[in-house]
Amino acid sequence: MTLTDSLLDFFIETRAHTENLCKPLEIEDYVVQPIIDVSPPKWHLGHTTWFFEEFILKKYKPDYTVFNEDFSFVFNSYYETVGQRVVRADRGNLSRPSVSEVYAYRQHVTEAIKALVASVENKELDTVLEIGIHHEKQHQELLLTDIKYILGNNPLLPTYSNSIKEHQAATTQQEWLTVHEGVYDIGHNSSDFCYDNELGRHKFYLHDYAISNTLVTNAAFFAFIAAGGYQTFDLWHAEGWDWVKREQISAPLYWHKVDGVWHHYTLNGLQKIDPNTPVTHISYFEAFAFAQWKGSRLPTEFEWEAAQHLFSWGQRWEWTESAYLPYPNYKKADGALGEYNGKFMVNQKVLRGSSVATPNKHARPTYRNFFQTNLRWQFTGLRLAK
Amino acid sequence: MTLTDSLLDFFIETRAHTENLCKPLEIEDYVVQPIIDVSPPKWHLGHTTWFFEEFILKKYKPDYTVFNEDFSFVFNSYYETVGQRVVRADRGNLSRPSVSEVYAYRQHVTEAIKALVASVENKELDTVLEIGIHHEKQHQELLLTDIKYILGNNPLLPTYSNSIKEHQAATTQQEWLTVHEGVYDIGHNSSDFCYDNELGRHKFYLHDYAISNTLVTNAAFFAFIAAGGYQTFDLWHAEGWDWVKREQISAPLYWHKVDGVWHHYTLNGLQKIDPNTPVTHISYFEAFAFAQWKGSRLPTEFEWEAAQHLFSWGQRWEWTESAYLPYPNYKKADGALGEYNGKFMVNQKVLRGSSVATPNKHARPTYRNFFQTNLRWQFTGLRLAK
Amino acid sequence: MTLTDSLLDFFIETRAHTENLCKPLEIEDYVVQPIIDVSPPKWHLGHTTWFFEEFILKKYKPDYTVFNEDFSFVFNSYYETVGQRVVRADRGNLSRPSVSEVYAYRQHVTEAIKALVASVENKELDTVLEIGIHHEKQHQELLLTDIKYILGNNPLLPTYSNSIKEHQAATTQQEWLTVHEGVYDIGHNSSDFCYDNELGRHKFYLHDYAISNTLVTNAAFFAFIAAGGYQTFDLWHAEGWDWVKREQISAPLYWHKVDGVWHHYTLNGLQKIDPNTPVTHISYFEAFAFAQWKGSRLPTEFEWEAAQHLFSWGQRWEWTESAYLPYPNYKKADGALGEYNGKFMVNQKVLRGSSVATPNKHARPTYRNFFQTNLRWQFTGLRLAK
Amino acid sequence: MTLTDSLLDFFIETRAHTENLCKPLEIEDYVVQPIIDVSPPKWHLGHTTWFFEEFILKKYKPDYTVFNEDFSFVFNSYYETVGQRVVRADRGNLSRPSVSEVYAYRQHVTEAIKALVASVENKELDTVLEIGIHHEKQHQELLLTDIKYILGNNPLLPTYSNSIKEHQAATTQQEWLTVHEGVYDIGHNSSDFCYDNELGRHKFYLHDYAISNTLVTNAAFFAFIAAGGYQTFDLWHAEGWDWVKREQISAPLYWHKVDGVWHHYTLNGLQKIDPNTPVTHISYFEAFAFAQWKGSRLPTEFEWEAAQHLFSWGQRWEWTESAYLPYPNYKKADGALGEYNGKFMVNQKVLRGSSVATPNKHARPTYRNFFQTNLRWQFTGLRLAK
Repeated sequence: MTLTDSLLDFFIETRAHTENLCKPLEIEDYVVQPIIDVSPPKWHLGHTTWFFEEFILKKYKPDYTVFNEDFSFVFNSYYETVGQRVVRADRGNLSRPSVSEVYAYRQHVTEAIKALVASVENKELDTVLEIGIHHEKQHQELLLTDIKYILGNNPLLPTYSNSIKEHQAATTQQEWLTVHEGVYDIGHNSSDFCYDNELGRHKFYLHDYAISNTLVTNAAFFAFIAAGGYQTFDLWHAEGWDWVKREQISAPLYWHKVDGVWHHYTLNGLQKIDPNTPVTHISYFEAFAFAQWKGSRLPTEFEWEAAQHLFSWGQRWEWTESAYLPYPNYKKADGALGEYNGKFMVNQKVLRGSSVATPNKHARPTYRNFFQTNLRWQFTGLRLAK
Repeated sequence: MTLTDSLLDFFIETRAHTENLCKPLEIEDYVVQPIIDVSPPKWHLGHTTWFFEEFILKKYKPDYTVFNEDFSFVFNSYYETVGQRVVRADRGNLSRPSVSEVYAYRQHVTEAIKALVASVENKELDTVLEIGIHHEKQHQELLLTDIKYILGNNPLLPTYSNSIKEHQAATTQQEWLTVHEGVYDIGHNSSDFCYDNELGRHKFYLHDYAISNTLVTNAAFFAFIAAGGYQTFDLWHAEGWDWVKREQISAPLYWHKVDGVWHHYTLNGLQKIDPNTPVTHISYFEAFAFAQWKGSRLPTEFEWEAAQHLFSWGQRWEWTESAYLPYPNYKKADGALGEYNGKFMVNQKVLRGSSVATPNKHARPTYRNFFQTNLRWQFTGLRLAK
Repeated sequence: MTLTDSLLDFFIETRAHTENLCKPLEIEDYVVQPIIDVSPPKWHLGHTTWFFEEFILKKYKPDYTVFNEDFSFVFNSYYETVGQRVVRADRGNLSRPSVSEVYAYRQHVTEAIKALVASVENKELDTVLEIGIHHEKQHQELLLTDIKYILGNNPLLPTYSNSIKEHQAATTQQEWLTVHEGVYDIGHNSSDFCYDNELGRHKFYLHDYAISNTLVTNAAFFAFIAAGGYQTFDLWHAEGWDWVKREQISAPLYWHKVDGVWHHYTLNGLQKIDPNTPVTHISYFEAFAFAQWKGSRLPTEFEWEAAQHLFSWGQRWEWTESAYLPYPNYKKADGALGEYNGKFMVNQKVLRGSSVATPNKHARPTYRNFFQTNLRWQFTGLRLAK
Repeated sequence: MTLTDSLLDFFIETRAHTENLCKPLEIEDYVVQPIIDVSPPKWHLGHTTWFFEEFILKKYKPDYTVFNEDFSFVFNSYYETVGQRVVRADRGNLSRPSVSEVYAYRQHVTEAIKALVASVENKELDTVLEIGIHHEKQHQELLLTDIKYILGNNPLLPTYSNSIKEHQAATTQQEWLTVHEGVYDIGHNSSDFCYDNELGRHKFYLHDYAISNTLVTNAAFFAFIAAGGYQTFDLWHAEGWDWVKREQISAPLYWHKVDGVWHHYTLNGLQKIDPNTPVTHISYFEAFAFAQWKGSRLPTEFEWEAAQHLFSWGQRWEWTESAYLPYPNYKKADGALGEYNGKFMVNQKVLRGSSVATPNKHARPTYRNFFQTNLRWQFTGLRLAK
C-alpha cells in the first residue's frame, strides 16, 4: 500500500467516523448552540468539509465545481468580512442549510477528494490532506463534547448512547512518582504528523519533582466540596474567585444533587456518580483550587511530558499550570493555515493527555491542547504534582 | 348547530390552521430563536397546546393523562420556578422534545378536547375554550412573523411560500378625513369575544382632528431616508435617537440595498420594493420620526377607534401615539389567566388594526395590540393624523 | 417696580439659592457621579450658567467675552458632536474645571446678565431669561436630590444639613374624596410662566372616581413589605418584576434595617423611620404594586389635576398612572429650546404635585414632572385612587 | 546608624514622597476614578496608610487608637464582606472621607509608626514595616500613572508638572546582543528586599537568542501605524484583534492627531511626539503585533533577566512573552500578606525593568511586574528579541 493509499483510507475512515458520531442524533440536535463555546453539530459537519473544499479542491482540482457559493461564509470559521446582502447571525440561529443539504455537501466533497487523490500524485496535496484529516479529528472531539452539552442542558436530559463509556476507575493505588533534576528534551521528534505548536523541540531544565500516577477522583472532589472548597476564597485565583461568585459555581459541570445524592449527566443519561472514577468537567480555576486545598499543585506541561511514560493517561484532558505559549523557535505557517494555533497563544492554559472523546490516532505525548481557564465542557481532569 | 358545536368547529379549524402555517418548514426551522423576541415555531406549537391541557383538560377531565410531565415547564411561558434537576435554558437551545413529539402532543390534546367537549356541557369550560382558541390565533400571528424573522435572518434568505401576499397598494388617493370634537364611546360593546383589555367601555373627549385614509407608503419612506431622516436627531425621541445610533439603524427591518436598489426580504423571498405599497417593519420610534418629518403626528388609539369606520385597514398593524394603559374600570381576571394582559401595561405603545399575518375572525375595531417602542418584526405600519 | 426689575430680582434670588444649596458641601462632594442619573453638583452649577451664556449673552450682548471656550462642551447637556482633541468622559470623571473655576464662571455670567438686563429693554430676552430662571429652579430640585444620593451612598452616611425637614405627618384622617363624571379642563390657563408640556389646555372626560386626601404612609409600606409584597409576582408589571429580581429590591431607596428596626438615610443623616410620614423614594413599579396590593390603583394625571384643589400636596412628587405624552395640539418650540420636553415623551410616567426639594415659585397644579418607571432618587410618593 | 534607624528614614522618606507626588493636584483630582483600573489618589493615600495601621499598629502597639473604624472597609482593597449598614460603592463615588481627613489619617499613622519603631526592637515588625514601605512605593508608581490618566482624559488636558521628564532618546545605536545557549540562574539572590514572586531562584535553560540593546521608538511605531498594523488581523492574537475592533484602537493611549500631526498627552501637557524617544502606553497585544510585523518577537522574562546587564533599562516597563506564573518552589505567605501576589498568577503577562514612574530603590533586575494583556495606562514599552 502506498503512502497515498494509506492516507486515503485514513481520510475515508475519518469522514465516516464523524458521521457515525451523529447517528444517535435527532435532526433538531444538529441545530442548536446553547453557549458561545459550543457549535451546532451541523456546523462541525459543514466546517470540516469546507476545509477540504477550500484548501484542496479549489486549489488542486481545476475542474472542481463549488457545491454552494454561500457555504463559504456559513462554514468558514476564519472569515472577517462577508458579502453585502448577508445578515450576520450566530451559528445557532441558522436553520438553513438543512441537515440533509449538509450531508449532501459532505458526500460531494468526500467523493471529489477521493477522485482527486486517485488521479494525482502531489506531495504538497498530501500534506494539506493530512492536516485536513487531523483537523476533522480535532472536530470529532469537539463534536462529542458539544453534543453532550446540547443534550445535558436540555431539561429532558436525553441519553445519547449506551455504548460509550465515559468513566473508568484506576486499577492501581495512588503513588508519587519522582523525577530528577536535569535538562529534558521537550517537543515533537519524529516524522509522524503533529501540529506546529508541538514543533521546535528544545531543552528544558526541570528541578526535582513528584507527580501522581493517578488522576484525582470524584471521591476526592466530594471531600473538597464538603470541606467548603467553593466558599474558601484564598484557595482561588482572584479571577477564579470572581468567576465562582458571578456564575454561582458550586460543583463540576453536569453535577446535580438528586435527593441528597450527587448525580451527573453523562452520554448514557443521568447517573449516580461513582466515587472511584476520575472527576471531570472542571475548569482550570477549580483544578488549581483543588490542588491548593491539597497543599499540592498542578504539574507544568514540561513536567507532564517528561514523566508521561511513567503513568497511564488518556481518559481526561489534564490541566497543567503552563500558559499556552510558543516554544522557542516556533514558526507560524504562512497564510490561512498559519492561523491554526499561533493566534490563540495568550490567556489560555495547556492541557495534556487526551480524553474518552479523543478519536483514535489523535493522542500523543507531545500534543498540546488549550482552553480558557473558565471552560468546563471538555472531559477535563487533573493530576497532582509537588 | 349548537354554540358548543360551533365552538368545536372553531377549535378544530384553529388547530389545523396552526399546523398549516408550519407546512412549508424544514424540521430545522422549528428549533431556532435568533433574537429574544422570536420564539421557535416548535415552542408555539407546544405552548398553545399546553394552554388547553393546563387550563381545560387538567381541570375538567378527571381521567385525563398528562402527555409528558416535563412539558409543563418547557411550554409554560409564565413559570417562575422549575424542578430541581432542570437546567434553565433559553427556548432556542432546546433541541428536545423533537418536532414529531410536539406534533404527537398536539394530537393527544386536540383529541382529548374534542372528546371532552362532545361529552360535557359546561359554560365555564366553553369560556376558557374560547380564550384558548383566541390565544392560539394570537400565536398564529406571532408564529408567522417569527418564521419570517428566522428565514429572513438566514444568509441564504430562503422563501417561505409563494402563495402569501404581504403587500397591496392602496386603491384610493390619500385624503384627510376630519372628525369633529365631542365625546366618543371607546371599548368593546357586544357579546362577541374580546380580551379583557378592550373592556370597560367608556367615554372619551376628542378634539377636532384629521386622519389619513391611507397608510404611509414605501415611496414616502424612501423620501424620508433620502432626506436624511435617520441622521436628523431632532426628529427623534431621545431614547429613539440612542437606539438608532446604538443599533446603527438606517432603514426598516429586512431592507437591503442591492446594487443601489432597495430590496426587502418577504415571505416570498428577496424582492425589489414596490413604492406604492405600505411601508412595514418599522418601530414606533421610526413611525414617530417620520410623522415629525412630515410636520404631522400619529393618531391616538381613541382617534383611530372613533374614525376607523371611515377608512379601510387590515394590512398593517398601525402604531398609535397612545401608551398601553388600562381603560377606566379595567379589571384583571383572577389567577393565571389574569396575567394575560395587565402585567404588560407599562412602557409599551398600542397598535390598532391588524395585519396580513392576522388569522381570520381575529381582527376587530376595538382590538388593542401592544409592543415595545423599538420592535419591528411584526407587520407594523403607520397612518398620519393632525 | 417694572416687570424687568422684578425678573432681575427673581434671577438674582435664583442664582443665590443654587449657591446656598451647595454651602454645606465639601469640595469633594461637587465632583462625584455615583449613578448615571445623578449629576455632580459642579455640573449643575456650570450647566445652569452655560444656559444663560449660550442662549442670552452670546445672542443679545454683542461685546460679550465667553468665559472659557472649552466649557461649552463640558456643560452642554445637549451636544452631539465634540471637537477633535476632546476625550469623551462621563461627568463624574471630570476633576477639572475646578469648583472655584466654576464659581468664577457663575459670577462672570451672573454679572454679565445683570449688566445686560439693566441696559436693554427686550421682550424676547425677558422670555428667554424667564425660561433660564425656571430651568435653574428645576436643576435646584435635582441638585438637592443628587446631593442626597451622593451622601446617602457613602458608607460614612454624612449629614447634609440639620435645618431641612424632609418629612411631615398628615394632619387629617385618610378619606376618599369623590369626583363626579364629566368633562374637565386640563392644562395651563394663565399668563404665568409654564413649560410647553403644560400648554394646549383641553377637555378631558372623567368617569366617577375617588381619590385619597392623604399620601400613603411609611406604616402602610411596612405592612406591604411584611405581607411579602416584594415577593408576590402578580402584584407587579412583568417589567417591574424583572427589575425587582435583577436589582434585588426589597425596600424603598435609602432604607436600612439596623438591629431589626427600619431606618432611612435623610438629609439630616440616618434616622429611625417615622411610620406616620409619607413613604418616599419609591419607583413607579413599587407604587403600582402597592396599589394593586391594596385593591386600589394610582390616579391618572387628569384625575389628579381635576381634584387637586380638594387636598393638600407638596411634600412628594406623586406617581400617576399616566404615561408622559403630548397634550392635544402640543407644539414643540423651534431650535435648541424645543428639545426641552418633547423628546422625552416616551416610556416615562407623569408625576404631579411637587416635593420638599422643589424651590419656591416652582410648584403649580398643572406642572408635569416625568421619570422612567424604575427611578427612585427623587422625593417620590403615592396617593391612591379607585 | 542601626538597621532600624535606616528603616525609619526609609519609611519617612517614602511617606513624604507620596505626599509630594500629590502636591500639584487640586482637591477635585483626588476623587475621581475614570476607569476601573485607576484608583482615586485619595484612595492610594488612605490605602497605603491603612496597611501600616492594620498589619503593624493594631498588632504591635497595644495602646493604639484606630483613627476611624469606618476607614477599614473604605481603604481595604482585600475585603470580602462589609458591615450591615454599608452601601457598596465604587471608589470613585466616594466624596468622603475628605482629602483633609485622609491627610490627617496619614499623619496620625505616620506618627504612631515613628513612635512605635523608636520604642520597640522587633525583627518581625521590621520585616512587615519593610513590606509596608515597598507596598507604598509600588502605589507611588500607580499613583503617578493614575494621575496621568485622570488628567489626560479630561477634555481640558491640564498639565501636572513641568519638572517631570517622561521621555529620553537612546544615546546608542540599535544593536542585537547575542546570548549563548545554556543553563542560567533566574530569581532573587541576596539579602535585600524582594517580593515573594521573585524567590525560588532556579535554573532555566535558554537557547541561543539575540535581544535589542534599545527600546522600540515612536518613529518605529509611526511606521507600524502607517503600514496599517492596526488593520492587519494576522499580526494579532485572536483575542487582541477582538479588542482592537471592540475598543476601536488605532494608536497608543494618549495619542491625538492634531492638524495631521501626532501629539500625545504627557504629564507636561499635550506635546508633539518626539520620534526618537521610546514608544509608551501600549498594551501587550500591541507590543506583540508590532513584533510580528517586524518579523521578530518579544523576549521571555528569563531571556530578559539573563541579558539585562548588557543594556540599559528603566524608562519603560517592558512587556515580555512570559505569562505571570509561579517559579518552581514558589511559596505563598500565610494569611492576608499571602494574597499579595499569588492570586494574580493567571491570565497576565510579566513586565520587566521599571519606568519613569518607578520611585528610587524600587527597581531591580529580578522584579516581576504584571498586567492584563489589554492594559495601557502604565509607562509600558517593548524591546525586541529573535
